[in-house]
Amino acid sequence: MIVVLKQNPNAEQLESLIAWLKEKGISIHTSAGENHTILGLVGDTSQLDMDLIAALDIVEDVKRIQEPFKNANRKFHPADSEIPVGNTQIGGDTLTIMAGPCSVESEAQIVGIAKAVKASGATMLRGGAFKPRTSPYSFQGLGERGLEFLKVARQETGLPIVTELMDLSQLPLFKDVDVIQIGARNMQNFDLLKAVGHQEKPVMIKRGMAATYEEWLMSAEYVMSGGNENVILCERGIRTFETYTRNTLDLSCIPVLRRLTHLPIVIDPSHATGKSWLVEPMACGAVATGADGVLIEVHNDPAHALCDGPQSLKPEEFDRVAAKLLKIHETVKAL
Amino acid sequence: MIVVLKQNPNAEQLESLIAWLKEKGISIHTSAGENHTILGLVGDTSQLDMDLIAALDIVEDVKRIQEPFKNANRKFHPADSEIPVGNTQIGGDTLTIMAGPCSVESEAQIVGIAKAVKASGATMLRGGAFKPRTSPYSFQGLGERGLEFLKVARQETGLPIVTELMDLSQLPLFKDVDVIQIGARNMQNFDLLKAVGHQEKPVMIKRGMAATYEEWLMSAEYVMSGGNENVILCERGIRTFETYTRNTLDLSCIPVLRRLTHLPIVIDPSHATGKSWLVEPMACGAVATGADGVLIEVHNDPAHALCDGPQSLKPEEFDRVAAKLLKIHETVKAL
Amino acid sequence: MIVVLKQNPNAEQLESLIAWLKEKGISIHTSAGENHTILGLVGDTSQLDMDLIAALDIVEDVKRIQEPFKNANRKFHPADSEIPVGNTQIGGDTLTIMAGPCSVESEAQIVGIAKAVKASGATMLRGGAFKPRTSPYSFQGLGERGLEFLKVARQETGLPIVTELMDLSQLPLFKDVDVIQIGARNMQNFDLLKAVGHQEKPVMIKRGMAATYEEWLMSAEYVMSGGNENVILCERGIRTFETYTRNTLDLSCIPVLRRLTHLPIVIDPSHATGKSWLVEPMACGAVATGADGVLIEVHNDPAHALCDGPQSLKPEEFDRVAAKLLKIHETVKAL
Amino acid sequence: MIVVLKQNPNAEQLESLIAWLKEKGISIHTSAGENHTILGLVGDTSQLDMDLIAALDIVEDVKRIQEPFKNANRKFHPADSEIPVGNTQIGGDTLTIMAGPCSVESEAQIVGIAKAVKASGATMLRGGAFKPRTSPYSFQGLGERGLEFLKVARQETGLPIVTELMDLSQLPLFKDVDVIQIGARNMQNFDLLKAVGHQEKPVMIKRGMAATYEEWLMSAEYVMSGGNENVILCERGIRTFETYTRNTLDLSCIPVLRRLTHLPIVIDPSHATGKSWLVEPMACGAVATGADGVLIEVHNDPAHALCDGPQSLKPEEFDRVAAKLLKIHETVKAL
Repeated sequence: MIVVLKQNPNAEQLESLIAWLKEKGISIHTSAGENHTILGLVGDTSQLDMDLIAALDIVEDVKRIQEPFKNANRKFHPADSEIPVGNTQIGGDTLTIMAGPCSVESEAQIVGIAKAVKASGATMLRGGAFKPRTSPYSFQGLGERGLEFLKVARQETGLPIVTELMDLSQLPLFKDVDVIQIGARNMQNFDLLKAVGHQEKPVMIKRGMAATYEEWLMSAEYVMSGGNENVILCERGIRTFETYTRNTLDLSCIPVLRRLTHLPIVIDPSHATGKSWLVEPMACGAVATGADGVLIEVHNDPAHALCDGPQSLKPEEFDRVAAKLLKIHETVKAL
Repeated sequence: MIVVLKQNPNAEQLESLIAWLKEKGISIHTSAGENHTILGLVGDTSQLDMDLIAALDIVEDVKRIQEPFKNANRKFHPADSEIPVGNTQIGGDTLTIMAGPCSVESEAQIVGIAKAVKASGATMLRGGAFKPRTSPYSFQGLGERGLEFLKVARQETGLPIVTELMDLSQLPLFKDVDVIQIGARNMQNFDLLKAVGHQEKPVMIKRGMAATYEEWLMSAEYVMSGGNENVILCERGIRTFETYTRNTLDLSCIPVLRRLTHLPIVIDPSHATGKSWLVEPMACGAVATGADGVLIEVHNDPAHALCDGPQSLKPEEFDRVAAKLLKIHETVKAL
Repeated sequence: MIVVLKQNPNAEQLESLIAWLKEKGISIHTSAGENHTILGLVGDTSQLDMDLIAALDIVEDVKRIQEPFKNANRKFHPADSEIPVGNTQIGGDTLTIMAGPCSVESEAQIVGIAKAVKASGATMLRGGAFKPRTSPYSFQGLGERGLEFLKVARQETGLPIVTELMDLSQLPLFKDVDVIQIGARNMQNFDLLKAVGHQEKPVMIKRGMAATYEEWLMSAEYVMSGGNENVILCERGIRTFETYTRNTLDLSCIPVLRRLTHLPIVIDPSHATGKSWLVEPMACGAVATGADGVLIEVHNDPAHALCDGPQSLKPEEFDRVAAKLLKIHETVKAL
Repeated sequence: MIVVLKQNPNAEQLESLIAWLKEKGISIHTSAGENHTILGLVGDTSQLDMDLIAALDIVEDVKRIQEPFKNANRKFHPADSEIPVGNTQIGGDTLTIMAGPCSVESEAQIVGIAKAVKASGATMLRGGAFKPRTSPYSFQGLGERGLEFLKVARQETGLPIVTELMDLSQLPLFKDVDVIQIGARNMQNFDLLKAVGHQEKPVMIKRGMAATYEEWLMSAEYVMSGGNENVILCERGIRTFETYTRNTLDLSCIPVLRRLTHLPIVIDPSHATGKSWLVEPMACGAVATGADGVLIEVHNDPAHALCDGPQSLKPEEFDRVAAKLLKIHETVKAL
């Protein structure tokens, strides 16, 4: 950490800062320039509160050198994480394809879609039982009953299931789920993150619409600091000035996260773009860029889906897209 | 609602759409242009799912004419809402000044600050007991003990208290609080919104960092649709490309919300800017623009605050700022 | 175009609006709802000024149905444009690879790089002679001399050259250039756009950092309305809240523009990300998503480049990347 | 400037970097930490190219401590700049009120408006002769004839005129203008900035829609480095995800720029919001926040203005707003 002092800092306050830092086991290197004196803090600065230091009258600016996350940091965990899920895994050489409807609507619907996507190459089934909806007047999901239908679909197909947890009070209902999804709007619901950090199921954290890479990784850190190392990161578009697409899919997150963290990275082109005709090209781009997996909405009747129909593929479209993704994945892995 | 059809729409599908709409009590006006045919839907379209219609093969685009919120809508509730809180109110002719520390740290601290801000003209005391922190390694608030200290401060000063609820499991602890604050990161924690909608205490909803006005009002609608009409909106900065300030304070929200809704509007310049020297000018701007209130962080020792010190005013600074705000409010009201 | 009227519009003003529209050859369909009356305008509405209508006292909102661009619109020009450049073309089945240094620094440098990138598979040479730099104290490019060196490199390798025009006064110097680049900061320099629209050389328009797809296409329309149909669009990242990458590369623009326009689309991962280690994965993603070409910075000595070194590949890195891109392009085209 | 080295940097390269820096008169302080070694560079680092250093293989990150602008920097010019214009000035104790139509449409129109706004308290007349329009099919301004009409209006009223220069080729026509405006879309048209830096007329630089404070100040620096110190900064809204207002007016720029620079700051609520009913509250907010001036669009017939009608006030509305602004300015100055 670098502390830039104001010109002519009060000597007493400076001494007191230095004493306080030394007490915390930090050693200090001073560079006195014409306009600024700079303190280089050496030691475990992840415990220091940058804001606290920045608030001092004698300090002009504080800059962090070390990332504030540890468990998620590739520097301290150089190998890629591979997270076992049922009969498959996320990360490593496999291309994970999570597919299914936005909402579970009935047993017949989810079992039908599960069979179709499995036949096309999906490795996991996704479907929402508890649905975060912007409007209180929109369909809110089947809830517990939806979870039951998902389990039936798993039994019929063997596909592990991934589904969203919206509130920690629902956690007991999720003990049979394979991967717990934390939605974008809950990415900084810290009580929820703590709760899923104190259980063992894999947790897939969707990026908040306005979350920086660092904030996203800090949310992973919340889960991991509770003892649960099975975290997957899922990009679903960020909010920008461009409104033609629902959000802007940020594929650069793939190589950036690859460098910063060892956790696997999944891309959700369906929610990011909000338009089914954009799913195929963006999924292809995601795989070629190096994603560990994609999450694709598939619905047998998108026009009558109870939520997010416009971004769903029909099973026959998904069949073509999945084949294409596997081919691109194979090509890229071979290069 | 306007539905723009693709060129040469399939006749059967069009008929089926029209039949479905009529079933829902919607009447339809058709305008056939050279390139597009447009359907104007008349009736209560707030129940229609735009996305569902947009997903149809024959539809090119859907545009909403009516706002999707009702209880919060000024059109259906023309008079400004005034929300009684303890011995004061939010909205109407009063300028609400909420002041206090980011975190409650001790009884002495919160009582001391409460007395100071009351003497300077504050009408409410704010202070965090449960703290949303980006890092799991940062101070997370005193929790229940913090709430107790706030109540002592209220008893000593008569100032009503406003404090943040982070998870619905904590709601029973908040039955003695005067205003429940929903933080920016929880603005779309829909289970939490529903929970505070089913009780009677006033709820202040902070705007999410990437929330549009409409999404913010839909969060108010969640609370109001549960039966609780006592909602206050609080702007605390939005996330933009500019990083010099922590967030970008969007004062335009004041006149815009004034037109769209009857709910009172409070501005938080402390969190928005993240720098104490920006609080005074931005609070002055907020009051002159027409805010119903401001929320200002005050700490007796900002440099050693356990959180967010850099944006806190000292009591003597707050004293000067509060006097200035009251003078500007008086001038503007008289014009 | 849809005009939403306020409740109970003044009858005289409404009549006057309708008369004015009819005069312009527009026919009008009226849908009277409970809360709103809607006018559907049919005819050539691209000549109507939306803002003018929106300004009327009786109007609540105006929504455009038809895109405001024509020459660039795929609706009126369904086939993909292929733009011949020297012995190659942009668009169609070829993958265009533009490569070269940010700045031309010397004849030896540009000739050396040109030979290297040609050997690796580049189809065009890029290099800046006139450089837009944020600081007046930074290197501003070799100017005219730089253009001469580029021509030498073209003569030695046969690669057509693409280079940036910053001001219309420099246009006469560009008569020997193969593709004129308009930089992101000049995307809405309308006098410059008009000037390059009145000559015949292909023009590559980089997207402004905060430009919507529509604004970008309107800049293409400026050039095309002057008579020059040879326009290429180049995405180089948009400005968002995320600052880890210099800008956020928006690969969704590829399928979106593909639908809206017939013009070819080139992706510049070097400027978008600002980091050389991100160029390879993002270029792979761009090609798999369907780009017509990529623009990649290559420098024989990135660490001593006079500008933008951090984002340049070394020739040996480029060699590997180009081979990978060609392989991915081939795979994707075959699917 | 701070240079963070990678772990175990190549010794030879490090020596070579240090030698190169010393050659440039920079002295270096080294802090070796466990994970990182940090170099503190002391001396005139504004001449160093950060990017060049960041490109070195041994460097992990470079952080600037000193601002890259000098002439515009308050540190080197502590007193507020006051810029004389005709019989008035911008900056200091005066509240500058620039008013007039978006476009000059006729002599009668501009003279009429000039007389009206002068009577209401405007200190300068604004009006566009050359108009930057997003669409090539929109009205592009009267050009030279518009400038002549502005001069007539000046003669009739004594109000100095401010009008936009779009291309440097038009500069000779502007020798009689009082303040040259550089539009938001040209904020980084560096050739244009250089040209107005080599003449003496005051230059008002509008902030680009996606420009940071630093970039904006670097554009001022371009003008000032040419010898022209008469620069005014004008905020007109930044592009964010919120689309209800045309742009998001960033009033925080006022106190931030006040700290960073000595140049005067003018706020344009008309272009920022795009809606006439938002102009009054936002102008009030701007003045209370501490702006040196406001720029307000006034049109005698907004509904038939040839451009930007929806954001213009009628003269009688402006009369009320101007009185209010002067009263708020007086109140704030007296506090």
